[in-house]
Amino acid sequence: MSTKKETFIKNRITMMVVDELRKIVGKDNVSTDDLIIALHSKDAAGLTGKGIAVVYPENTEQVAQIVKLCYEKDIKIYPQGSSTELSGSSMPNGGVIINFGRMNKIEEINIVDGYVTVQPGVRFIELEEELSKHKYMFPIDPGSYRAATIGGAINTGAGGMRGAKYGSIVDWILGLEVVLPTGDVINIGSKTTKCRQGYNLTKLIVGSEGTLGIVTKAYLKIVPAPENIVYAAAFFEKIEDAMSAVADIKRSGILPAIMEFLDEDVVEVGRRIINSDVEGNLLIIGVECNTEASERMIDTLKEILKKRSKNIIFAKNSKEMEEKGIMELRRAFYPLSMKFGFQQLKTPTFVLIEDIAVPVSTLHKVVREIKEVAKKYDFATLIGGHAGDGNIHPIICIPTEDPEKFEKAKEFYFEIMKIALNFEGTVSAEHGIGLLKKEGLEMEMRFRKSEKALDIMRGIKKVFDPKNILNPGKIV
Amino acid sequence: MSTKKETFIKNRITMMVVDELRKIVGKDNVSTDDLIIALHSKDAAGLTGKGIAVVYPENTEQVAQIVKLCYEKDIKIYPQGSSTELSGSSMPNGGVIINFGRMNKIEEINIVDGYVTVQPGVRFIELEEELSKHKYMFPIDPGSYRAATIGGAINTGAGGMRGAKYGSIVDWILGLEVVLPTGDVINIGSKTTKCRQGYNLTKLIVGSEGTLGIVTKAYLKIVPAPENIVYAAAFFEKIEDAMSAVADIKRSGILPAIMEFLDEDVVEVGRRIINSDVEGNLLIIGVECNTEASERMIDTLKEILKKRSKNIIFAKNSKEMEEKGIMELRRAFYPLSMKFGFQQLKTPTFVLIEDIAVPVSTLHKVVREIKEVAKKYDFATLIGGHAGDGNIHPIICIPTEDPEKFEKAKEFYFEIMKIALNFEGTVSAEHGIGLLKKEGLEMEMRFRKSEKALDIMRGIKKVFDPKNILNPGKIV
Repeated sequence: MSTKKETFIKNRITMMVVDELRKIVGKDNVSTDDLIIALHSKDAAGLTGKGIAVVYPENTEQVAQIVKLCYEKDIKIYPQGSSTELSGSSMPNGGVIINFGRMNKIEEINIVDGYVTVQPGVRFIELEEELSKHKYMFPIDPGSYRAATIGGAINTGAGGMRGAKYGSIVDWILGLEVVLPTGDVINIGSKTTKCRQGYNLTKLIVGSEGTLGIVTKAYLKIVPAPENIVYAAAFFEKIEDAMSAVADIKRSGILPAIMEFLDEDVVEVGRRIINSDVEGNLLIIGVECNTEASERMIDTLKEILKKRSKNIIFAKNSKEMEEKGIMELRRAFYPLSMKFGFQQLKTPTFVLIEDIAVPVSTLHKVVREIKEVAKKYDFATLIGGHAGDGNIHPIICIPTEDPEKFEKAKEFYFEIMKIALNFEGTVSAEHGIGLLKKEGLEMEMRFRKSEKALDIMRGIKKVFDPKNILNPGKIV
Repeated sequence: MSTKKETFIKNRITMMVVDELRKIVGKDNVSTDDLIIALHSKDAAGLTGKGIAVVYPENTEQVAQIVKLCYEKDIKIYPQGSSTELSGSSMPNGGVIINFGRMNKIEEINIVDGYVTVQPGVRFIELEEELSKHKYMFPIDPGSYRAATIGGAINTGAGGMRGAKYGSIVDWILGLEVVLPTGDVINIGSKTTKCRQGYNLTKLIVGSEGTLGIVTKAYLKIVPAPENIVYAAAFFEKIEDAMSAVADIKRSGILPAIMEFLDEDVVEVGRRIINSDVEGNLLIIGVECNTEASERMIDTLKEILKKRSKNIIFAKNSKEMEEKGIMELRRAFYPLSMKFGFQQLKTPTFVLIEDIAVPVSTLHKVVREIKEVAKKYDFATLIGGHAGDGNIHPIICIPTEDPEKFEKAKEFYFEIMKIALNFEGTVSAEHGIGLLKKEGLEMEMRFRKSEKALDIMRGIKKVFDPKNILNPGKIV
């Protein structure tokens, strides 16, 4: 068959599919506009893809029909939240993009039973606002929580600032409604904390990056917000000292909910946010406690931190901490890295964000090695992240228009992953595998002599999605 | 082929396999003694099975070789902990029983990095003892924690008394070393809290009841033991009131780590343990707090509980609570049920333990319905369990030698599961599926119109274990 004829047939099928999609969701909920498609084919990591249409379903039944149609016609499907996951896992490559912007309701907040029911398009910030009215919280808070959706975070297996105490999102999903690649809808897990339902499909779907099924509803476990949090923000001359202080705190028997760090360059470029003359490598610690214990907890932190830091700021509660601007500085890590890159490179900058995790006791060695490798490559590099759970995000700044540097940056990116493995860590902590970490995942499983695990993953993908239509090309 | 010849060949193969097993683990680590096999073919639920040999490997390499041998010769394998899971999941049916009694080392306790490394045969009580030296804990504590092994609990997906706050064991497993049915060894997950390694095979193995792989090592997340726990033990005239008090507490914004209950009959039969004249339905509440907040926390509990209870005992800390014997009474639920059965039936008694979970807000209705159904069947029935997470364990007492009553008890068992489903609960909370809940699991997935999930589970089983040699016949 000639290429021309092939293209003609392909276009015919596409047109037919778009017509069918319009019948399912209404014509206002399908777009084939090039600009709209382009907007949905870019992610926060700077990757770009392509799609034939964007569709905005309003309920599970519509999602099921869309998937059934695509399954019959062999059309690829790309479910998508806000594309802030930084691994390329939501990048389309020529199929139908399903956007959940119109499935964004918090369906139920149930305090007594300790769960909320949400549609996938609900944003973290919206959920936080609603829960705070009840003095409750959902403990997972990814850096991009203003934009990130719950559905996207479930697919990514996201973490956040409270990981040291509260783990990742996989520990907080009680149950899911999922549309399978065949269009069948299943309801797995439960509204209860305990549930033994054979193989744990719920926790298998979490982190599967939309390759096994499409999440259309989630039951999330919620907990009372802590009565109080006391904070310490300590500045250290050497980043290794900051990392050693993390180990000091862990050794003391305190389990902070928050233990974040930023290296001296981030502090330097962001100093204005906290309106102060501070300098050095910053470690932020937040410990949940009863109100009556606040003073003692601050004293304990002071006792531990003063051994390695000469400049420590304390806050008795979250309000005081927000007023001091220190959390805002931490949250600005990503935008500040772009500012830093531009200052250093004097040209538009692209930033590549790493996401490794290592045992906390090795952090001081790991950051030193990363700094040394950065020197070798002569890259403008910043380091920050979630020290409490050993999750660090080195950021590499490279000129936007420099393919050679970009290739070098990729090498660097791999060297950082290798450092993580050498210190018994993992190549991806919370951003997922997507496209950017596929080779990294293979490297990790080779390193662990566990390539068979990859075969099993491929087998599982086939069980769920024999026609390989759901977010194909991601993870395995 | 004649049956005689078949039997002859089968026996030959068995003898050859036993010889090979002896070469792998040494002759002292294989037993074909009928009595030993019988001892390993009985579980805490009273089920019996059969096996051709019991083998006691001492390390992962030996497990891998045993599995390789069985894979080649098509011999079934039954990995086994202490068989206390109460669902029949560890019952052998004609193959090699692998017992982990000689793989029982705590390999590493790492406080700074927040994990322990254990072999599967380590018992909960041993781990607890070691961790308490560091003022740390592993928050999962199944009722049978004195006998239960970590490996068994991982396979079961066990829960325990602290479920309301700490969830189930699946939330506390960071990584696993697993021998696949082919004999390949994989190392999945990480020592870090955050880890995105493609599909979450670690959490898929947890709760898979030894049907997908054999756990030979586990990395468990640990946390500091709480600074203090205050307790209230309240007695209620009506069990419905006790259950409504659970909802009152949840509504108040307190998240107790412990919220246990026993109905009035258990209290009656076990009263001597607490050496007191108490009566009524008992609710035990334990709230973790800082020392300074203890008094206030007790006052808050008093304020809430006194609305429905006239007899409340308080304890300022765990030591005081242990002295009062109330936790011991709770832990004696299972033996007390046998005593109760014997008192009621005047004949040796077999007890059938249910394990459902329902949303906490429905508990008062659920216990009422269970009591009514019990009346209809005229069974001696006790109810107790983990009220904080809606996990209740009705216990049915039946005469050991009465097949007719046993059939009726099975009907009752199913009616309780149906009640759970009608109240949006689940048929198995923490004991797993095994043999006893296979039909229950099917019923649950039918009820949820999610039978496709069972097909997927069968598909996953085939991916891991194409020859169906690993603990066959369990779950799906």
